[in-house]
Parts: sequence; C-alpha cells; structure tokens
Amino acid sequence: MPKSIGRCAWAVAEGYIPPTSTEGKRQLTSHETICILNAGDEDAQVEVTVYFSNRAPVGPYRFKVEAKRTSHLRFNEFTDPEPVPKDTDFSSVIVSSVPVVVQHTRLDSRQAALALLSTMAFPVDG
Amino acid sequence: MPKSIGRCAWAVAEGYIPPTSTEGKRQLTSHETICILNAGDEDAQVEVTVYFSNRAPVGPYRFKVEAKRTSHLRFNEFTDPEPVPKDTDFSSVIVSSVPVVVQHTRLDSRQAALALLSTMAFPVDG
Amino acid sequence: MPKSIGRCAWAVAEGYIPPTSTEGKRQLTSHETICILNAGDEDAQVEVTVYFSNRAPVGPYRFKVEAKRTSHLRFNEFTDPEPVPKDTDFSSVIVSSVPVVVQHTRLDSRQAALALLSTMAFPVDG
Amino acid sequence: MPKSIGRCAWAVAEGYIPPTSTEGKRQLTSHETICILNAGDEDAQVEVTVYFSNRAPVGPYRFKVEAKRTSHLRFNEFTDPEPVPKDTDFSSVIVSSVPVVVQHTRLDSRQAALALLSTMAFPVDG
Repeated sequence: MPKSIGRCAWAVAEGYIPPTSTEGKRQLTSHETICILNAGDEDAQVEVTVYFSNRAPVGPYRFKVEAKRTSHLRFNEFTDPEPVPKDTDFSSVIVSSVPVVVQHTRLDSRQAALALLSTMAFPVDG
Repeated sequence: MPKSIGRCAWAVAEGYIPPTSTEGKRQLTSHETICILNAGDEDAQVEVTVYFSNRAPVGPYRFKVEAKRTSHLRFNEFTDPEPVPKDTDFSSVIVSSVPVVVQHTRLDSRQAALALLSTMAFPVDG
Repeated sequence: MPKSIGRCAWAVAEGYIPPTSTEGKRQLTSHETICILNAGDEDAQVEVTVYFSNRAPVGPYRFKVEAKRTSHLRFNEFTDPEPVPKDTDFSSVIVSSVPVVVQHTRLDSRQAALALLSTMAFPVDG
Repeated sequence: MPKSIGRCAWAVAEGYIPPTSTEGKRQLTSHETICILNAGDEDAQVEVTVYFSNRAPVGPYRFKVEAKRTSHLRFNEFTDPEPVPKDTDFSSVIVSSVPVVVQHTRLDSRQAALALLSTMAFPVDG
C-alpha cells in the first residue's frame, strides 16, 4: 500500500443539481455528489467552495472524512453556510488537510429512466 | 486554497451535438458542453478551436470567464465565427490566458430517456 | 509500444452496487466494475481494498491478471474475504505487483432503461 | 496554442461492444469508440492493439489521423487483421507517431433508451 494516496486539492468544473426527480426515495432522487476517499491514517478536514456563473463563490462548506473511510457528499444536502440552488450551473474546489481522492458523480432522474455521469476530479498541482 | 488552480490549455477529443431532442426546453435540449472554472483572481480570456474529421479547424471562438466564476458553454450555442454543425464528429482545444479547469459533458435527449456523459478534459503540458 | 504501461497503485473514490436490476441476465445485471489491463510481459498480482463510510476497510481481495491480458472484475461477484454489500457507498484502492491500467465502470439497470458511467481510476504517485 | 498537444501512447482498460441495438441507424447503433485528436502539423500513424481476457492480443489495427483533424474510430467497424468480437471484454493500447489526445466513449442502445459513457484515455508516460 503506498504511503500517501491522493492530493490535498481538487477541482470539479461541472456542477448541476437537476430540479426534479421522478422518484421520491433518497436512493433515486436526482443528486450531484463528490465521493471523497481518505485512505490515510489521519482524519481529513475538508473544505468545499462552490463557484457560480454570476455571483461570488460560497463556502467553505466543512466536512470531516475519518481516517480509512470514504464519504459520499451530496451537494443537494449541503446547508451551511447556505443550500446549493437547484437548476443552476456551478463548479467546486475541494481542499483537504491530508491527501484524499475525489470523484464526481451525478444521478439524474428527471425522466422515467435515470442517467449517470462520473469522472475523477482534477488533481490540483503543488 | 492553492495559488493556481488548473492549466492554460486543455483538449477534448470527443465532440458531437445530437441532431434532435425529445424536449423543447433549453434545460433538456440535447447539448455538448465545456464547463470552465476560473478559480483565480484574474479574468480568463478563453479561445476554443474546433477540429473536424474532413475539413480545416474553425475558430477561435472567444469567451471571457470572470475571476472566481464558472462558465458552462454549449457548443450548440456557439455562433462566431460560425455555428458548430449538429450530427458531426468534432474535437476541441481550449486555451486560456490564466489557469482554468475544463470538464466536458453531454446531455443526449434524442430518445424519451436522456443519457449523460462527462469527463475531465485532458490538461495539456507546459 | 512503450516498455511500461500504467501504474502499480490506483484509487476509485466512487463505489456503489445498485440493489436491484430489471434484468436477470448477467450481461444486464446492475454491476460495479474495475477493468484492469496488464499490457506487460509479467503476470500481475492484484490486491483490492474496499473502504466504507462507517466501518473498517475490508480486504485485500486478491486477483491475478495474466501478462498481456485484461480482467473486468465485478465488485458484486467478490466473495473472499467477504461479499461487498449492495446499496452501500464504498471506495477502493487497487495495488498491483506490476504496472497496470485501471478503469471504473457501472451499469445500473434498476429501471427499465440502463444507465452507464465510466472514468479512469486515479493513478497514485510514486 | 501549445506546440504539442497530447501524448504518443494511451491505454483504455474498459472495452465492450454491446451485442444488440434497438435502432438500425448507424448513429444510434450500439458502439464503442476511441476519438483521436491530432492537433499538430504532421499526420499521425496510429496503431491500436486489443487485449482480451483469455487469448493473445490482436493487432495492430492501423489508422491515419491527418494533421489538424479528428478521427472517431468505432471498434465495431475494425476489420483488419480481424473484427473485434461483440459481447466480449477487451482493453486497448493506442500508439501514435506524433502526440494525439484519445478519449473513450460508448453508446449502448440495447434497450429502448440509450446510455452513454466517456472518459479520457490514460496517457502513458515517457
């Protein structure tokens, strides 16, 4: 097992919470997620900043990802400092106190059949 | 927060605007998008060049992405120097005056149920 | 052909096995996959560790990917040391004795129309 | 515009041609694609090798991607040295005489609603 897995800063340029869902269950509700793996021995203090097209960034949203644990965070469940609006383009930057790995996933269930997308976030240098 | 987030040149090898949509609303119209995050303190002057399989590249298409803002650009809304044709394979290169992060996303609503794809663009070295 | 293709450690932050399928055939059963390409001349001994949100990691799951072969492994078919639970968020780290390339794919057939996602895994440094 | 865009070797660990389609038109036929952008001034001689789970690799499949052009190649249309079988797991390595950018995309129309996936290929070092 490598000593350090991941990076301390990541960016996701795409962000969008579909405004509706055809399903009421949390599992199939439309959502925009960042999955954060902390494979290390130390808890990660994570700060997420959200960028918009026509107003100042909002954040940081603060989360803890414990050592040797993963956390799948849904933007549509962010509340503090404020909810992330639906049906609005955004981007995000994720900064962590220790190396983590970040992947971006969306489940869109606006229509009767769900759609999925996923990509590794961009690992910021340095 | 890192001082510089992203790169000044990116490439997207896949490009295709589905010729039809089952939905009339802009939100669910088939589209091919590049999402550009400028997390820095300076506005980004962005130039996009579009490559085709059987004719010379077209561009640059010019855009400004303001400091600390994101811009989700749809190829199907590009007009100057010319519209990007539908139902045609293309690729794109994105060059920016300051570091940005670029992600490629398609929403295909040709059929009753939409499909999605997304991937980080390829960060060009140097 | 380059001498060495890939890396010896990879991470996938997203992981989720949909709990149901609308199709009974293996081909269209909901699945979460890591595709591992060993383009080299030596067999790869691969160890996968699975991370959860609220309990200790499980593993290693051990696999061999022969020289010049590819192996598409489904998390929902892992058995030893224990099955990977459905409807549960997880992440994974893949460590190989020789360089390989790892890609993450999900087929979700919970609804009548399937959905797909895929992304390269994150290549761990060093 | 950067002088050189891309790399001379790429790998795609995932590969699968769905055995059926619900649509007869080429546009909506299930397909597995590698999109290759050659943004440089020189034609690219490209060789693709296909790896399987239980037999020796096949190839090279040879293609030319002209300077400043893109080529979207469908594995299901490869013929020489032999067709790529459907409903079979594979991986691929792409080697080019000049730097190119490679992206992997699948359109799956086995069911009434199509599904899409896409990811940048893995850029091989050196």
